[in-house]
Amino acid sequence: MSEDNNKATIIVFSGDMDKIFAALIIATGCAAAGMDTTLFFTFWGLNAIRTGEPVKAKGFLGKMMGIMNRGGINRLNPSQFNFGGVGRILFSKMMRDKKVASVEELLQTAIDLDVHLLACKMSMDVLEIAKEDLIPEVENVVGVATFVKEAANSKIQLFI
Amino acid sequence: MSEDNNKATIIVFSGDMDKIFAALIIATGCAAAGMDTTLFFTFWGLNAIRTGEPVKAKGFLGKMMGIMNRGGINRLNPSQFNFGGVGRILFSKMMRDKKVASVEELLQTAIDLDVHLLACKMSMDVLEIAKEDLIPEVENVVGVATFVKEAANSKIQLFI
Amino acid sequence: MSEDNNKATIIVFSGDMDKIFAALIIATGCAAAGMDTTLFFTFWGLNAIRTGEPVKAKGFLGKMMGIMNRGGINRLNPSQFNFGGVGRILFSKMMRDKKVASVEELLQTAIDLDVHLLACKMSMDVLEIAKEDLIPEVENVVGVATFVKEAANSKIQLFI
Repeated sequence: MSEDNNKATIIVFSGDMDKIFAALIIATGCAAAGMDTTLFFTFWGLNAIRTGEPVKAKGFLGKMMGIMNRGGINRLNPSQFNFGGVGRILFSKMMRDKKVASVEELLQTAIDLDVHLLACKMSMDVLEIAKEDLIPEVENVVGVATFVKEAANSKIQLFI
Repeated sequence: MSEDNNKATIIVFSGDMDKIFAALIIATGCAAAGMDTTLFFTFWGLNAIRTGEPVKAKGFLGKMMGIMNRGGINRLNPSQFNFGGVGRILFSKMMRDKKVASVEELLQTAIDLDVHLLACKMSMDVLEIAKEDLIPEVENVVGVATFVKEAANSKIQLFI
Repeated sequence: MSEDNNKATIIVFSGDMDKIFAALIIATGCAAAGMDTTLFFTFWGLNAIRTGEPVKAKGFLGKMMGIMNRGGINRLNPSQFNFGGVGRILFSKMMRDKKVASVEELLQTAIDLDVHLLACKMSMDVLEIAKEDLIPEVENVVGVATFVKEAANSKIQLFI
């Protein structure tokens, strides 16, 4: 098989801490195996690559969403057993106890392993998230056509 | 690469408005890129291709499910920030404000781009949904064997 | 196409009854079509391959998780319309009425069709689940590198 399709493309739709964790583990695993790996963040997944600073949305709905859904890799809640925010602390503690990397450390590892971080333009528009609201390591803001092209040439494509 | 595997096959399991939106965006993106694209609707995903008319299920449980889970592309609720149905209106407004197509328009676009709409026979049986409860654009009601055959010959396969 | 990539690899992240059902239907469909099929259970998906016996975790958090999240294929709840546990019974009844196999029977069918059951080491560590807490049919406890290798050589890869 030729090298040019030794790729992995993962759509990160979910903003749940446990799913972001899974996405980052798989992405770093692919990169460690020598694959050219791309994480394509869309909708709630964008929260994982937001700075966590308050959003500067102008519209009323964008402001509301910015408050309810502030983002930042340290503010993600798990999909199960959240208990109004306690779950995040519980899981973080269980991961630390087991010497498993935190989601924040995993995101840094992904960046260090040259995993490409792409953000979906359309969902940023809908949720009123600007390029400045994202961490600087995000390579590009792209449309679905870019995702389709990458995914069609990838050995691994997942929707998380 | 031969033309005969220039395919994309997407399982739509979720009935959440935001995930249906993502599935339709990806499907229309694949079709626009010239791929032979199939959406395979199963379980809650079937709601996106239901007429929205009251279900004529005969069994007690089927009737109950028909009331709680009426379906229709305009009745889908988002997975996050639903607030008892207000979320649907909020997201629809945000999408309209940003001049993003609605899920209803996207479904029509997918149909116009010859995306194949298939429905899963087994989950229709379990949820007591009949062929007449689905929109006429649904090409076929099929089993898992059809999905496996399509997916194994596709460059892109996703579970949404 | 050579026989050696006639594979399907499915990550089972979710512990929802309906998603486990979908994963098992797809896996048995792939196996029935002659594909070498692997289910890679991680996080909440591990519940589907737990014995259902009380967990013998030593740590406080592990004990708490063991109580809240006991596992066992017969204790899974659906993602929708759960109503505090009634949904499980409702769906089981609907499936029985329609003569559809239960999740428990489907798991056995998957085993009979030589579907490989693998468990994710890292999530077992985090959730304090030991090898003895899993059903004996689980072939192996593995890391992400094993998944990546399998998935990169598979025609079908899904994240459920």
